Amino acid sequence: MAHSYSTATSDNISSAQTMLAVQKPAAEPGFHLVQAPIPEIGPEDVLVKVSLASICGTDLHITEWDNWSASRIKPPLIYGHEFCGVVEAVGKDVKKFHPGMRVSAEMHVPCRHCRQCMTGNLHICEQVQILGVDGDGCFAQYVKIPRLQLVTLPPEVSDEYGACLDSLGNAVHAVSRAEVSGKAVHIVGCGPVGLFAIKVAHALGATRVFASDVVPYRLELAEKAGADAVFDASKTTVSAEILAATKGMGADVVLEMSGNPHALKDGLTGLKNAGTVVLFGIFGQPVPVNLNQDIIFKEAQVIGVNGRRMFDTWILMLDLLEAKKIDIDFMLTHRFDLSDFGKAIELIGSGHSGKILLKP
Amino acid sequence: MAHSYSTATSDNISSAQTMLAVQKPAAEPGFHLVQAPIPEIGPEDVLVKVSLASICGTDLHITEWDNWSASRIKPPLIYGHEFCGVVEAVGKDVKKFHPGMRVSAEMHVPCRHCRQCMTGNLHICEQVQILGVDGDGCFAQYVKIPRLQLVTLPPEVSDEYGACLDSLGNAVHAVSRAEVSGKAVHIVGCGPVGLFAIKVAHALGATRVFASDVVPYRLELAEKAGADAVFDASKTTVSAEILAATKGMGADVVLEMSGNPHALKDGLTGLKNAGTVVLFGIFGQPVPVNLNQDIIFKEAQVIGVNGRRMFDTWILMLDLLEAKKIDIDFMLTHRFDLSDFGKAIELIGSGHSGKILLKP
Amino acid sequence: MAHSYSTATSDNISSAQTMLAVQKPAAEPGFHLVQAPIPEIGPEDVLVKVSLASICGTDLHITEWDNWSASRIKPPLIYGHEFCGVVEAVGKDVKKFHPGMRVSAEMHVPCRHCRQCMTGNLHICEQVQILGVDGDGCFAQYVKIPRLQLVTLPPEVSDEYGACLDSLGNAVHAVSRAEVSGKAVHIVGCGPVGLFAIKVAHALGATRVFASDVVPYRLELAEKAGADAVFDASKTTVSAEILAATKGMGADVVLEMSGNPHALKDGLTGLKNAGTVVLFGIFGQPVPVNLNQDIIFKEAQVIGVNGRRMFDTWILMLDLLEAKKIDIDFMLTHRFDLSDFGKAIELIGSGHSGKILLKP
Amino acid sequence: MAHSYSTATSDNISSAQTMLAVQKPAAEPGFHLVQAPIPEIGPEDVLVKVSLASICGTDLHITEWDNWSASRIKPPLIYGHEFCGVVEAVGKDVKKFHPGMRVSAEMHVPCRHCRQCMTGNLHICEQVQILGVDGDGCFAQYVKIPRLQLVTLPPEVSDEYGACLDSLGNAVHAVSRAEVSGKAVHIVGCGPVGLFAIKVAHALGATRVFASDVVPYRLELAEKAGADAVFDASKTTVSAEILAATKGMGADVVLEMSGNPHALKDGLTGLKNAGTVVLFGIFGQPVPVNLNQDIIFKEAQVIGVNGRRMFDTWILMLDLLEAKKIDIDFMLTHRFDLSDFGKAIELIGSGHSGKILLKP
Repeated sequence: MAHSYSTATSDNISSAQTMLAVQKPAAEPGFHLVQAPIPEIGPEDVLVKVSLASICGTDLHITEWDNWSASRIKPPLIYGHEFCGVVEAVGKDVKKFHPGMRVSAEMHVPCRHCRQCMTGNLHICEQVQILGVDGDGCFAQYVKIPRLQLVTLPPEVSDEYGACLDSLGNAVHAVSRAEVSGKAVHIVGCGPVGLFAIKVAHALGATRVFASDVVPYRLELAEKAGADAVFDASKTTVSAEILAATKGMGADVVLEMSGNPHALKDGLTGLKNAGTVVLFGIFGQPVPVNLNQDIIFKEAQVIGVNGRRMFDTWILMLDLLEAKKIDIDFMLTHRFDLSDFGKAIELIGSGHSGKILLKP
Repeated sequence: MAHSYSTATSDNISSAQTMLAVQKPAAEPGFHLVQAPIPEIGPEDVLVKVSLASICGTDLHITEWDNWSASRIKPPLIYGHEFCGVVEAVGKDVKKFHPGMRVSAEMHVPCRHCRQCMTGNLHICEQVQILGVDGDGCFAQYVKIPRLQLVTLPPEVSDEYGACLDSLGNAVHAVSRAEVSGKAVHIVGCGPVGLFAIKVAHALGATRVFASDVVPYRLELAEKAGADAVFDASKTTVSAEILAATKGMGADVVLEMSGNPHALKDGLTGLKNAGTVVLFGIFGQPVPVNLNQDIIFKEAQVIGVNGRRMFDTWILMLDLLEAKKIDIDFMLTHRFDLSDFGKAIELIGSGHSGKILLKP
Repeated sequence: MAHSYSTATSDNISSAQTMLAVQKPAAEPGFHLVQAPIPEIGPEDVLVKVSLASICGTDLHITEWDNWSASRIKPPLIYGHEFCGVVEAVGKDVKKFHPGMRVSAEMHVPCRHCRQCMTGNLHICEQVQILGVDGDGCFAQYVKIPRLQLVTLPPEVSDEYGACLDSLGNAVHAVSRAEVSGKAVHIVGCGPVGLFAIKVAHALGATRVFASDVVPYRLELAEKAGADAVFDASKTTVSAEILAATKGMGADVVLEMSGNPHALKDGLTGLKNAGTVVLFGIFGQPVPVNLNQDIIFKEAQVIGVNGRRMFDTWILMLDLLEAKKIDIDFMLTHRFDLSDFGKAIELIGSGHSGKILLKP
Repeated sequence: MAHSYSTATSDNISSAQTMLAVQKPAAEPGFHLVQAPIPEIGPEDVLVKVSLASICGTDLHITEWDNWSASRIKPPLIYGHEFCGVVEAVGKDVKKFHPGMRVSAEMHVPCRHCRQCMTGNLHICEQVQILGVDGDGCFAQYVKIPRLQLVTLPPEVSDEYGACLDSLGNAVHAVSRAEVSGKAVHIVGCGPVGLFAIKVAHALGATRVFASDVVPYRLELAEKAGADAVFDASKTTVSAEILAATKGMGADVVLEMSGNPHALKDGLTGLKNAGTVVLFGIFGQPVPVNLNQDIIFKEAQVIGVNGRRMFDTWILMLDLLEAKKIDIDFMLTHRFDLSDFGKAIELIGSGHSGKILLKP
């Protein structure tokens, strides 16, 4: 697929009241680099100067304008939802944040009044609004964030790490729900969240971590991430390898992060009785599941996960990072200026990158 | 389907060392009523005189000799796995049971040495042997039971109730895993276990219990069981009814007891975000599941259940019965002499019965 | 103890911009009935016209000015923290509430930024501010509430019930933590929260509920609440009764709601191995506990509880009330006009009342 | 304290049908090294040739004949309950074990019929019999074990590790109950189980592990075990150190392994709100606990632990050892021949040892 990108020159990134931003200007593929007004903040908002942002697969979908994007996004929109930055200004009712504080943010903004919000599940609020999808996001020099969405970064967390907390948080949430402590874990699919999950599973006490994928670049990153064994599903039957490695018992936990029905099926075959499956990867269509054999007779447990818990996931993630339990340097493969967003988005489409950082 | 049954006459049920029993004599449909030797017991076994037995759908499958039966059962076999009785004799190493004690038994006999057995999951032992399927069962005047499989019945539990504990136990286990306390529960499918589950869910603190099926006889029993609302899936969209009854939230818990893919699909549609699905019904083939919408985005949890826990389920069930929290009189619709097994098995095939009791 | 109360006459409860209120005017015993300004609201606040309020033991402490009150409360203060009412006006940034809506409120106002708040434990926020203790409360015709503290009442919940949700919520939270479904529960201490807990335990599926106290008035209310057995600790050894009633096993759950060391000790004696103790009652001083015998060898679990979860407890409580699972009519023993607060507070001190309602 | 020990000479350890054993011959301090008959086994028993045994503090109590020993033990008794060995012979009904298999054993023998046994809590069976306390144990060349108590050792577990699984299992059970994954853990008391717990907590995903004691020898071992920080409670206020190290939050988990009331009190002071305390250490008498401040207002959770779960603890422990997640070499400080038991028991009394191994 060929994008038609429009690029701002460095000349137009300097006006006092405007900022450089990546914008979807209309309901069609592509993006514009624009000079947008710096956001005005309300009494409960915080204006953050973006230090570094990071690109997610969703940003590629928005750029390419897939069906999901077309059905949800209302241009014009500044997108991007992974970043860290420094507080620039605060609204008059904001008491806990001050200019100069280093922060990141949970970009899923819950309504805080529905039943899910009122029972601790803010991350699955049915009226959730996502900054960078439903409202302006962080591929810009400044971003406006409601105060309750902000997270303070400790000094142990670098800007590079701070820009990746959205997707690292997906991994922390998924692995947390699986309760991997003392268990043998099979991570199916080694995209960025799957790769992070290898690190997180080890940090949270998994006894062994197996990883599988079909893309050599990803399998190499899985090795770098420290998986105890890495299996290429294009060359071997992964479930057979898992069973062999576990004396025929199977993995205690399967983390499905591929969105591939065959990989899921094989993952379930390699799951032990009474095992746990966490579903994170998104599937293109309904998937046939052998419920009798793979779920019922095994008394398996299947848990869907989505986003990150507010803010249990963030607190745990920051604790792990402060304690140096997770090293994600291996994933920081590329860095671009925001004005080179076009190159960055082409690279992410190639499948040959870890996390790509953007410097506004 | 026409059975060819052979029936013993009352004349031949009197020899001192033999007993009346329902036997599958060969690998084909039908059964024989035979005079079989009273079982000899080993040092760790208990001989129980059967007071009452009860028929399960599995017994119909064995009689009709379906694919599953043909692949698993090795005739000749005395079948039947739901009963209560009185201890007649005990092996020399049996210390806790004595002649005259009223008992029932868990007929799934675990190996007690595999990883599942050693971690409390005896009910999903991979080497489980089922009495009445893999070894002689209880459709007979006497049955031999290993001591560790026996459960003592308190006086508050009648013989009629005692004969139904296997299937009531399925309901207790399934409902327990769903953690229904304080929740709105939808029971999909009103066969015997589904009907028992209505009672158990109320006893364990469900706030509301909805039930659905398509068979009028079962829907009537669901009303008798005290469901807060009963929906006929042949006449209404059940998920719409559930959503209407829960202010659009959906049920907190779905207990799938139908084995019907359409009923499961609709059950998932009526499940709230972060809800729990327990799968108990057996499906004829792999089922297409919309994992994104019904599991992942909702953060739903799916739990397969099988059998009864040894012996948490039994202890809880007996506590509930002793405390008079569960009344299953509405389910005790028919009683036959064991010698009329042919009539009983035809009735169960008609779908117009609750539990059918057999008097040896 | 003799209070010196000052009482407003009905004449002075009519000015357009003022309202009748119960105020602690200075750091000393007693209260004043005053005409106070109707509160002004900020952009995120809601002004509620109080329909009914209810008196808590804490209000007696504040009136009597005990050590705790003297150390914490900064007069002048309008106190009271249990009520329901109707929205009168909303701040400009309030979108989910409108004049005319029936509401109650969680009066513990968490900071929403500390680690407890960010991990779902808003009710144990270390910087919590309590309306009616640290800021003006609800013993008045109007009360100002921050929008995130409000709870909408469904039509099934009457004003009389709505005024008691703070203390009923204590019971719902304590019983929820104990996971009573299918269990034998011993409630130690039959003050208002203990009495509510009897109802809640039954509603959440307790198999049997035992209650004990030493005050005849309370024991009578425990009978009315439907306890399966009520024991007078001044006349019998309660643990012996509990053991006898459970075949020597002991209660599965002990809810300590007395704050009495002897009652706790005896409660632990009557707890079964692997049982759960919930501590809610406040003790006058450190309590000697036989940790070996009562906790360690038994593998007992002790859980401290405090307040109500925001807002899991509220949601569950409203579900139970809507489904008519909890009837608290037996507790609504007295009703006074707010202007008769003096009589009401004397009555609560006598120990001969259930919940006392105040009509502003 | 001076023991009066009697020692067997090498001459009398050679008869064909006898074996060397450490015996308590009478109700008084001391022990005898004797030539005892090799045990005869029943149909469900296994005879194990002891490869290595290990000494526990309980063995010191038995040798010294403290109050507990005097009240429980019925001499003559061969004691010792930590060991590994090789199957020598099996009873006629034993199918899963064969001569030559390497094994260890859970020496707490549950009745398997009581309510605790029937609900998965075999380790707190009220009728438990302990081999080495209530029946003959493993300080001998051979020991008789009921088949259901045996655990097979994988080749990755050496004899030296295999001899320590009883006390390592205490640590695994205690740490498992605390659910340390992703948490900051404070281990109070660095006896053998506390020291093992440092290793286990790290293996199961604790983010940070703090350890405290007052004995320099133990503090040194805690350093060797890899604690993130080690505090000498005789020189500093440990709770202040813990609070400083956790930004004032406190530890998420306290593992009490000292049996010292002051250490417990200080541990509770350093526990965060909503934290978990596991009690394992045995106290000399009832302990005053500030329930309000340390448990209730904090919503802390206190969990008593005892022994090891059968056999969840063993399975997890062996998985951790196979995966090389726990290295206990630092604890294997001394080795003696069984005939030098007198020297070994004197050493353990000195407090200057880790685990002491005995070679029969």
